[in-house]
Amino acid sequence: MELLRQTVDHIEEVLIDATGEIQAKFNAFAIPRGSLGRLEELATIYASIKGTVDCTIKHKKIFTMAGDHGIAGEGVSAFPQQVTRQMVQNFIEGGAAINVLARHVGAKVVVVDCGVASHLEPQPCLKIKKIGLGTKNMMIGPAMTRKEAIRSIEAGIELIEEEFKEGIDIVATGDMGIANTTPSSALLSVLGRMDIVSVTGRGTGLDDESVQKKREIIKKAITVNQPDPNDPIDVLAKVGGYEIGGIAGLCLGAARYRIPVILDGFISTAGALIAHQIEPKVNNYLIASHVSAEKGHGMMLQFLNKHPLLNLNMRLGEGTGAALGISLVEAGVKLLREMATFQEAGVSEPHVG
Amino acid sequence: MELLRQTVDHIEEVLIDATGEIQAKFNAFAIPRGSLGRLEELATIYASIKGTVDCTIKHKKIFTMAGDHGIAGEGVSAFPQQVTRQMVQNFIEGGAAINVLARHVGAKVVVVDCGVASHLEPQPCLKIKKIGLGTKNMMIGPAMTRKEAIRSIEAGIELIEEEFKEGIDIVATGDMGIANTTPSSALLSVLGRMDIVSVTGRGTGLDDESVQKKREIIKKAITVNQPDPNDPIDVLAKVGGYEIGGIAGLCLGAARYRIPVILDGFISTAGALIAHQIEPKVNNYLIASHVSAEKGHGMMLQFLNKHPLLNLNMRLGEGTGAALGISLVEAGVKLLREMATFQEAGVSEPHVG
Repeated sequence: MELLRQTVDHIEEVLIDATGEIQAKFNAFAIPRGSLGRLEELATIYASIKGTVDCTIKHKKIFTMAGDHGIAGEGVSAFPQQVTRQMVQNFIEGGAAINVLARHVGAKVVVVDCGVASHLEPQPCLKIKKIGLGTKNMMIGPAMTRKEAIRSIEAGIELIEEEFKEGIDIVATGDMGIANTTPSSALLSVLGRMDIVSVTGRGTGLDDESVQKKREIIKKAITVNQPDPNDPIDVLAKVGGYEIGGIAGLCLGAARYRIPVILDGFISTAGALIAHQIEPKVNNYLIASHVSAEKGHGMMLQFLNKHPLLNLNMRLGEGTGAALGISLVEAGVKLLREMATFQEAGVSEPHVG
Repeated sequence: MELLRQTVDHIEEVLIDATGEIQAKFNAFAIPRGSLGRLEELATIYASIKGTVDCTIKHKKIFTMAGDHGIAGEGVSAFPQQVTRQMVQNFIEGGAAINVLARHVGAKVVVVDCGVASHLEPQPCLKIKKIGLGTKNMMIGPAMTRKEAIRSIEAGIELIEEEFKEGIDIVATGDMGIANTTPSSALLSVLGRMDIVSVTGRGTGLDDESVQKKREIIKKAITVNQPDPNDPIDVLAKVGGYEIGGIAGLCLGAARYRIPVILDGFISTAGALIAHQIEPKVNNYLIASHVSAEKGHGMMLQFLNKHPLLNLNMRLGEGTGAALGISLVEAGVKLLREMATFQEAGVSEPHVG
């Protein structure tokens, strides 16, 4: 609890372009004012977090957080539980979508075992932060203890601190965990005070009947555990997941070190929701990369008042949407750094505007 | 006319994944089926155009087509006409937004003088395809002759043929031309049979009064010239622009050589509209990168039945949206090429779906 408390205490409010310096720099560029749209917005957010207009993005890290879920046994996923472990192996070997997209945008993938249901050995690109061998079945009782919930968040904070030493300019979140749209929907329902039907979707590809069953399972889990919507750690413990706690920790840890966080889809945003409910100041450090095809993600982003950059009908997780988001933020930051002004380029300024 | 006719005659229909091979490859990947959303769609379009599932993107070229407009003298832009020439110089020196974004996505910028209103010398990254020293004032008579209109389209085709020799896998279009939203709106109004008010926007930043004046100018130009909506070359000649014709030529030339074209914003799509009306088979070679904040662009994309990849409130032109689009198409193509299958990765397949 000490690490979590300290981290939260050190998170500063982000003042967006407090001095007006970023806006002034964009206004001097040889373009019609405002014509770069959200690329200007992204550069402004990034530079404001970094506290300097003279910023770059060098070290880009995507954290793909893996964990298993006791609820998987209830048939809430189209895939068997061992796929979590198998996909972790795929990430290590570089054959997954997130590996391809990370290479494409020049980012490093850090795979993290937050609680896969089997023993894994650490490897150069696999970090072991295992809280347990998968969560417990939340239909029967809490997914994890309160202590484990805190520990999972602190694991995320530790990851930031470890990577901070070798340099980290931007964080992207990702997830892998069979059945993890179920706890994510439960978290949204409780924290957002939203009805279960509207926040529960098809996950990896459930049919109508299975979605209906999934909703009943979520309802049961919430009824059995009675998570307190005013206590995000209680909610995480009762109906959450280890990798979701880990993502919450990444958000808090990154904010503490003034590192922008690019959120991936439904599970990543569930983690961000926990972080936000623990400390709302984290919000300004978060950038929503895309809106997932998973039902409920749009509502989650609205709850956080985030406008996604992309809407490509993706619903894979792993950090795939966030990887694409990195490239857009980087585009904005490079524009801020490299463009010529009206004066430098010898371009006439507008009559108006 | 010979080059245009020959080019159009050689454009083949694109059969999207005719053999089902691309779909089969995606279905074998260790992901929930369809979970890559539009990235899968982009890879499918690209591979279908190339005619092989075994494709890559190596040579990426952004053509920034510059031209001046007689109508600029009527006060339809917030910027003076000399900005076209000044920005061409900025492109050559590498200080413009398109240079920054091209470097970001690893593309080459080819700047083309299609009809800038002053003499320019060719340079390694500047091609001279000048049709005239700016178009004529279309409020008084046709912007250009029919012969010039054909010549402007053929200039675009020539560019593809010239670049084809040194390799070109994907084309992105871009534009620079003070006042060129005015002919673009006129083209959309005539070819799309849409009313002038709904297709005319603020361009580089006009106020309400100036937009009203711009609409009256477009109305006058159409009334005076009576362009034939069934004859796209007539429309281009009477209310178009040299760079717009050049972009139409890029689309047709690229289609003829089975090269996908990423469209930028309002002016690029106006060029695509001309190409499409000349030969509808060109449509399947076109990918819409973004929807611009310029009023009318969304309607233009709808007319072409294109769904933009990005909506970032950009309205700069130059090819800036298309540059970002290149990166997304490349992401899809790399996924198709580099991902591991369920079998290769040893990942269990789903129970369902």
